[in-house]
Amino acid sequence: MAISLGSNQYGKAENRVMRVYRDTDRHSIRDLNVSTSLRGDFTAAHLEGNQGDVLPTDTQKNTSFAFAKEVGIESPEAYGVALGKHFLTAAAKATGSQIRIEEYAWDRIQVDGQGHDHSFVRRGTETRTAIITVEGRDADQKVWVVSGLEDLIVLKSTGSEFKGFLKDKYTTLEEADDRIMATSLTARWRFNTIDGVNFDEVYDDVKKLCLAAFATTYSRALQETLYAMGRDVLEAHPEIDEIKFSAPNKHHFLYDLDRFGLENNGEVFIAADRPYGLIEATVLRDGAGEPGEAWTAVPSFI
Amino acid sequence: MAISLGSNQYGKAENRVMRVYRDTDRHSIRDLNVSTSLRGDFTAAHLEGNQGDVLPTDTQKNTSFAFAKEVGIESPEAYGVALGKHFLTAAAKATGSQIRIEEYAWDRIQVDGQGHDHSFVRRGTETRTAIITVEGRDADQKVWVVSGLEDLIVLKSTGSEFKGFLKDKYTTLEEADDRIMATSLTARWRFNTIDGVNFDEVYDDVKKLCLAAFATTYSRALQETLYAMGRDVLEAHPEIDEIKFSAPNKHHFLYDLDRFGLENNGEVFIAADRPYGLIEATVLRDGAGEPGEAWTAVPSFI
Amino acid sequence: MAISLGSNQYGKAENRVMRVYRDTDRHSIRDLNVSTSLRGDFTAAHLEGNQGDVLPTDTQKNTSFAFAKEVGIESPEAYGVALGKHFLTAAAKATGSQIRIEEYAWDRIQVDGQGHDHSFVRRGTETRTAIITVEGRDADQKVWVVSGLEDLIVLKSTGSEFKGFLKDKYTTLEEADDRIMATSLTARWRFNTIDGVNFDEVYDDVKKLCLAAFATTYSRALQETLYAMGRDVLEAHPEIDEIKFSAPNKHHFLYDLDRFGLENNGEVFIAADRPYGLIEATVLRDGAGEPGEAWTAVPSFI
Amino acid sequence: MAISLGSNQYGKAENRVMRVYRDTDRHSIRDLNVSTSLRGDFTAAHLEGNQGDVLPTDTQKNTSFAFAKEVGIESPEAYGVALGKHFLTAAAKATGSQIRIEEYAWDRIQVDGQGHDHSFVRRGTETRTAIITVEGRDADQKVWVVSGLEDLIVLKSTGSEFKGFLKDKYTTLEEADDRIMATSLTARWRFNTIDGVNFDEVYDDVKKLCLAAFATTYSRALQETLYAMGRDVLEAHPEIDEIKFSAPNKHHFLYDLDRFGLENNGEVFIAADRPYGLIEATVLRDGAGEPGEAWTAVPSFI
Repeated sequence: MAISLGSNQYGKAENRVMRVYRDTDRHSIRDLNVSTSLRGDFTAAHLEGNQGDVLPTDTQKNTSFAFAKEVGIESPEAYGVALGKHFLTAAAKATGSQIRIEEYAWDRIQVDGQGHDHSFVRRGTETRTAIITVEGRDADQKVWVVSGLEDLIVLKSTGSEFKGFLKDKYTTLEEADDRIMATSLTARWRFNTIDGVNFDEVYDDVKKLCLAAFATTYSRALQETLYAMGRDVLEAHPEIDEIKFSAPNKHHFLYDLDRFGLENNGEVFIAADRPYGLIEATVLRDGAGEPGEAWTAVPSFI
Repeated sequence: MAISLGSNQYGKAENRVMRVYRDTDRHSIRDLNVSTSLRGDFTAAHLEGNQGDVLPTDTQKNTSFAFAKEVGIESPEAYGVALGKHFLTAAAKATGSQIRIEEYAWDRIQVDGQGHDHSFVRRGTETRTAIITVEGRDADQKVWVVSGLEDLIVLKSTGSEFKGFLKDKYTTLEEADDRIMATSLTARWRFNTIDGVNFDEVYDDVKKLCLAAFATTYSRALQETLYAMGRDVLEAHPEIDEIKFSAPNKHHFLYDLDRFGLENNGEVFIAADRPYGLIEATVLRDGAGEPGEAWTAVPSFI
Repeated sequence: MAISLGSNQYGKAENRVMRVYRDTDRHSIRDLNVSTSLRGDFTAAHLEGNQGDVLPTDTQKNTSFAFAKEVGIESPEAYGVALGKHFLTAAAKATGSQIRIEEYAWDRIQVDGQGHDHSFVRRGTETRTAIITVEGRDADQKVWVVSGLEDLIVLKSTGSEFKGFLKDKYTTLEEADDRIMATSLTARWRFNTIDGVNFDEVYDDVKKLCLAAFATTYSRALQETLYAMGRDVLEAHPEIDEIKFSAPNKHHFLYDLDRFGLENNGEVFIAADRPYGLIEATVLRDGAGEPGEAWTAVPSFI
Repeated sequence: MAISLGSNQYGKAENRVMRVYRDTDRHSIRDLNVSTSLRGDFTAAHLEGNQGDVLPTDTQKNTSFAFAKEVGIESPEAYGVALGKHFLTAAAKATGSQIRIEEYAWDRIQVDGQGHDHSFVRRGTETRTAIITVEGRDADQKVWVVSGLEDLIVLKSTGSEFKGFLKDKYTTLEEADDRIMATSLTARWRFNTIDGVNFDEVYDDVKKLCLAAFATTYSRALQETLYAMGRDVLEAHPEIDEIKFSAPNKHHFLYDLDRFGLENNGEVFIAADRPYGLIEATVLRDGAGEPGEAWTAVPSFI
């Protein structure tokens, strides 16, 4: 019986890189959590304990911090592409690299109606993400960029129903004409190009479009809302070929107040933790380019 | 040898109460996490398993939700005072009650520059808290209100030093002229009255004052910054007698880039998780009223 | 420009199913966290809000609990296969289903040297997992079972080195002859059959083999240790074709005590949180069957 | 209006100290999370930013690690007492110190029926805690030791009821003759002496007594079970004067299977997350010594 090494990767996860721009007295900051990894033929390391081809994860860490200075962080995506390409140069046996980045947003503290020069408060709303995958070298090199957001928590207090669903012997759910709909949105969008893209602007706009679609779509199911978000994003952004959503249906159940002689006209709900519905959907441009390795090992998505 | 029951309390923790105000098409919401507890002489329950004096935690839960409708949630504090007083009426053997509330803030989703009527996005910045303690009945009844905030994460990229400190044989820290200072602020302030207080307005102002003090105080230590916050709050708010802070010093260490031939003039830092400094301080108005039970069993404070 | 729905799934996540077997006075329990999902052509739900083909997640929840009684929980895998097959019968438009299960182990409380009949203490060591994927119906139906464990935290205080690695200009790591190696192991193994498999016994044996390989392998890198685990499992279990590992390198750094005139011969370490190395590897039987959809949407693995 | 500094403390939290004993080939390890703090008159630091009396938290960190070697870790309590006393010597303006320790237990990995010499698996069951408070110097010095455990999760599948409770207009709970009782136990016990105490042995015995009382007490309420635990501990351990418990009632609700034509005789439950009952109780020896500062700033207890 023969046994061998299959797919594998290794890297340094969760480098907490804080970059301060202080060229003038008005500082700006970018606050990242950077994970890097290399893929390829590392059989010698696994079978013989030979590290000759292994660029240590400690070196990857050093590089992440050094690049925050050398390359700078114009956007998480641009910084990630630079890192991903670099590692293929540094490690000859690697066939691919993947850089995953989370960014935490900060606002200037308001003092007397003005944003302060060097004091910041963390925004907290959602986490921005970027996943950069690089395969091959030179003319054959391919780069995929998937941007995204996580934990954007939204709720609408009306404008949502759920009815007309399939029933079987285990079905007890009653149809709902008017319910709270709430979710903690994760979205990831795949670019078909990286040339000339202003990733910060695209991020802001995709977020704005998703929020607006959530707000204005009368929802007959969370699926319909997700599709509306994706459609609006793809229509506005030709540089994006595909967008994936993962959205827990954060149930809010009407609390039964009749028992206490009180009416409850959609006013008092209990927010439940578990279980929760979990809806995942992909919206795709017809003729979209091949995703290649863009989604390989990306967490939690079909 | 004799053994007996000492201090004790029981209640229902973490009732997730979502209250929707929908009297007009423009909804508003209050999103609370409510914990209730009763204290008193419950010896029979502990020694004999006799529940005759025990108002079940399930009933406390029902009451929390019912009061969201009956009393409403003008502010977490007002709602909590009503709950706390009620439980002393409902449970004759209770000598005191404590209600702890967390509130999560939501903003209206912006659509075409307008806040939407019934769609919201969770703000995420910090958690608002309120702890209401009620002791006794009728003319002897006392009510303490401690409001607060948790997880307000702030950072300044300059304007902070740390030097001139006490040294011993285990001291290796170098003095710092210019460092990042960051914390995740917890603050709790004790009112000396609840009459006529607009708790929502006070909350907004205390938060604003703390942020401004953080931004504008040149800091020779986190202690100095906390004291400045407290002083500003007490000076502006005669209805507050005392404010307590708990503030982890979220260390950001300069990353050594010299090794790679790169200068690092306060530009690239690694944000560390553990260990962290932890600073706790109380700022007190001279002649402040007795705290009584206001701080009893309140988490994590000296 | 045309836009359409791509891959999608929906279901109920994290149903906390506690099953008590109480046919005799000596009870036994199985404590599961069950997530179910359906995949297929649900275009009408996404584009038109038509739920006619959608078996609600609430019904999936009911079914998970009902099956704990109707089918029972001989093993998470057997219960999951029954659920996965059932959903394809219940929802005509589904082309596939995936059931993900976590199991938490409990031990009997020891009283006077005997395990108690109906009192248990949660073991806490690791979480057992099972992921069952079903595609198609009738003669074309395929079932894949991937069992696993998560958060098995292991450490060796010697018997580990790391040297001879690739160096570049960002490399500052020193070679280590003797270090602590620690990880929180996640492993997932894919069966090539489910007929006649005693999943509980296999689970216990795979865990035992992984622990033994960790203990007895002199490790020149975490990669080598993972490979040794996988090799031992595949050699002992012909019913397993493939095993995947994800293992954070939980760094323990020697604390510099020289500064205080103290020797530190591998005695005092600081356990670091972030960043951490992250090693992922697959060990594969030659001629292994096609994985098909076994790994689709499975979290966090290359 | 005058404002001044009230109670305050500062220190270094969560030093992750791993101590390896490797004097022979059979290693042993102690894995601690150590938080230290100083209290006293630090007005100059708060009001004037003068650090002359402040022993930096970085020095406290160094000392925690140095003492793991110099003093060793015979038990968390003994190590904590040494640290707590030391800091009062090192910082003249401190009036008190508090050391909080969590310990994580590890078992030897079994290989061929033998515990391995230097390979360990983390037990995971519960966390051991110790809180040491020192006040004053020389002849006036007082030392309090509070040992404890957290997150010991226990469940009994029968032998628990809840009935005969107080009812009001908000009561809807039905009486239960036979229910699951489950909790995640936190206990803290205060010693009346530290002389000659074998803290490791006491810990094991207190845990054993609590588990046995949980298992063998027919429970008419969680309160009764907690009291039984405390009584058994105080009766067996004259060196302990007081024990406090905090125990969430982790509700398991019978799942309604009648709707599907299935009987549910206490066999299938849904484990709920929130809200949960929260029961806290103190059991006290008559004539117990004064607690002094033993409980000051100790988290989450009445």
